[in-house]
Amino acid sequence: AVRRAGFAGIRAQAGETEASTATAASHINPGIRKEEPKVVDSVVASELDKPLVAYCRCWRSEKFPLCDGAHAKFNKETGDNVGPLLVKK
Amino acid sequence: AVRRAGFAGIRAQAGETEASTATAASHINPGIRKEEPKVVDSVVASELDKPLVAYCRCWRSEKFPLCDGAHAKFNKETGDNVGPLLVKK
Ligand code: FES
Ligand code: FES
Repeated sequence: AVRRAGFAGIRAQAGETEASTATAASHINPGIRKEEPKVVDSVVASELDKPLVAYCRCWRSEKFPLCDGAHAKFNKETGDNVGPLLVKK
Repeated sequence: AVRRAGFAGIRAQAGETEASTATAASHINPGIRKEEPKVVDSVVASELDKPLVAYCRCWRSEKFPLCDGAHAKFNKETGDNVGPLLVKK
């Protein structure tokens, strides 16, 4: 069984105050392209500008689908360990 | 201000029973390679087996870093809209 009391306490410690709506808290994606039913992106590797490009998997990047380093803040605040996918030509 | 009461109610509706620990609920990544401080993967596109490969961004795939379609169940259960990154050669 889920222990609701402890659950709520730990969530509060993790700093949920940035959640602007109740629903957002259970989402991985708090706000990117919410008008789309499923956010899918494509990269054609042969057309990349650079030999290595980092793609976001934390859904917190302001340059999504690219990684802008926002995973570091997210991991620090939540104790999570998410990071990008590196695509090399 | 965050409305804690509504927040807890909506989380319960969203089916948090699959969360095995309190901490996991605030994480994007519930269980993949938690021994690593940051989960980063690399793909060398020129070495892909197939012309198009889908990479997971929902952290629910049993074939992570590949997408196995688990985002569909996650989206259905939570109302989220996450999906994979498609890498093409
Ligand atoms: S900013 Fe999201 S993984 Fe880096
Ligand atoms: S299984 Fe995670 S994005 Fe498809």
